[in-house]
Amino acid sequence: MNYKVKIAVDAMGGENAPKKIIKGVEISLKKNKENYFYLIGDQSLIKNEIKNNDLIKNNSEIIHTEGIISDDESPLTAAKKGKESSMWKAIELLKNKKADISLSAGNTGAMLVISRLLLKNIEGISKPALAALWPNKENMNVVLDLGANIECDEKNLCDFASMGSALFKSLFINKNPRVALLNVGLEEYKGNDTLKKTFSIIKKNNIKNFKFFGFIEGNQIMNGDIDVIVTDGFTGNIALKTAEGTANFITSNLKKSLNKISILFSYFSLKSFKDKLDPRKYNGAIFLGLENPLVKSHGSTDSIGFAHSINVCNKIVKGNLIDKIKENLITIDDKI
Amino acid sequence: MNYKVKIAVDAMGGENAPKKIIKGVEISLKKNKENYFYLIGDQSLIKNEIKNNDLIKNNSEIIHTEGIISDDESPLTAAKKGKESSMWKAIELLKNKKADISLSAGNTGAMLVISRLLLKNIEGISKPALAALWPNKENMNVVLDLGANIECDEKNLCDFASMGSALFKSLFINKNPRVALLNVGLEEYKGNDTLKKTFSIIKKNNIKNFKFFGFIEGNQIMNGDIDVIVTDGFTGNIALKTAEGTANFITSNLKKSLNKISILFSYFSLKSFKDKLDPRKYNGAIFLGLENPLVKSHGSTDSIGFAHSINVCNKIVKGNLIDKIKENLITIDDKI
Repeated sequence: MNYKVKIAVDAMGGENAPKKIIKGVEISLKKNKENYFYLIGDQSLIKNEIKNNDLIKNNSEIIHTEGIISDDESPLTAAKKGKESSMWKAIELLKNKKADISLSAGNTGAMLVISRLLLKNIEGISKPALAALWPNKENMNVVLDLGANIECDEKNLCDFASMGSALFKSLFINKNPRVALLNVGLEEYKGNDTLKKTFSIIKKNNIKNFKFFGFIEGNQIMNGDIDVIVTDGFTGNIALKTAEGTANFITSNLKKSLNKISILFSYFSLKSFKDKLDPRKYNGAIFLGLENPLVKSHGSTDSIGFAHSINVCNKIVKGNLIDKIKENLITIDDKI
Repeated sequence: MNYKVKIAVDAMGGENAPKKIIKGVEISLKKNKENYFYLIGDQSLIKNEIKNNDLIKNNSEIIHTEGIISDDESPLTAAKKGKESSMWKAIELLKNKKADISLSAGNTGAMLVISRLLLKNIEGISKPALAALWPNKENMNVVLDLGANIECDEKNLCDFASMGSALFKSLFINKNPRVALLNVGLEEYKGNDTLKKTFSIIKKNNIKNFKFFGFIEGNQIMNGDIDVIVTDGFTGNIALKTAEGTANFITSNLKKSLNKISILFSYFSLKSFKDKLDPRKYNGAIFLGLENPLVKSHGSTDSIGFAHSINVCNKIVKGNLIDKIKENLITIDDKI
């Protein structure tokens, strides 16, 4: 394969950067040589991490920047001072068509603001959204929006359905994904006006790019019978974080309950349980709706988690996400 | 103790009624003789369950009704045909001051509608809300609203804070509970307008009946450092059900991972883990804001779960919930 997926990596974002970032690039390159990396950030720090590492040297170049956007910066101050930052530069490489996709483990709010300053919306998309992968009983599903848009109308939710199903197709399979709207009940009369309107628009339009399953409730997100779950950014953010908190609560209770003997005898069972639920596998939120895709890694993940989000970047580019979003859109947008 | 807590029990609501209901009453009476039960429903079915059981006979009376509201009935049709039903009668006993509290494992929507038809709001309360107990790292907390009100304004959320803290005080301790608003971030500028307004009203009013901790995120609900978590009914319902779904997903994965040998050697550890998280302990959603308290048991719980919700009823009445709500209210309501 001659063509490489070109990934603009913000080498300075997140905890333990750039060390963890560079290590993540290395882990990824050992498995997959299809990617080429722009490593953006403090040249001397990055050089120090990759010295003697020919694998990385042969598959990357360093782009030097001085500034770093810290995690506690507000999105607006970050955007103002941002032009010299590694994050800004990583997104600018998309604009200049030098990179296919951009990846950062830095400040999410800043990433959303800078990308909207530098990049255009896909034509027909009202608002970009943040999507993530959730584990389910069968495999994984896509949930969006997870916090980019606190308030959403029916046009936004229809767009999210299109974009989410395009993302699912580009990451997994090429068949039509099963899409549902997150609500407080299954019946058509349940929920707020926006949800009811979205339900009737999608139903009426007889969408061809995905199968519409109506409403689902929070306890069905992980059942494995829906591929794309659509919600506004407020609800999605609460749902995602509540699920994280519940998972932490249960696993920490499990740890407390197990004594040394039971750990000894359950070692392999517990290891397979832990592997299955490893949050690093689901690392990487995808910012959808702009003319180029961006991926946000969790700031506190380690190099293995970062390597997983590199893998997501690779699949998104090879799966032609942006083209799929454009194909999907026509059907809904024409008929609203 | 001479005075008994009088509980109007809908003996026909939920799965396996009236068998499970009567068994739950028996479990509760074996531990606690402070309650007196009105068992409402089909006389012959109930009599059949309590024959030869002097413990129940001496602490209850049967009130015969013909109708049952089924789980799949819409709230409005249930309310229309409801006057002859066990649920209607159980709530009517509150209105007539014959019972202190009413308990049903039946149709939640019907219970909300019938109770609002028969009972008045507490003066000063804008909308009643549905609250539940969540396990956390320390003990339990209260979360409300869980679905009674899909859309809420700042007055509603302030009322929920007052009612939730009154509930926490009447169930647990008499010190001032720690209250927070569920949001997508901790900073004052995060979230929607209603949340920002509620934040500033509560902060400005320097409430004396609880300690206000501002915003929390979904992953903090179970941390154990907040006692009362306030949200609108849409968000609360999604959060509750997402937590349920996540818990099911994790425990079913754990079961799948464990082989026979590891189960054998971990038996007691796993039992203590299971006991700690037993959902029956948290059974019982409380309907707050009407002049009398009502408790909704989970329809699919068993007799042990139902006995837990009887215990919640007992604590609510002995803890003078309604008086505490009235005390709490004055402070906020006067100053909005």
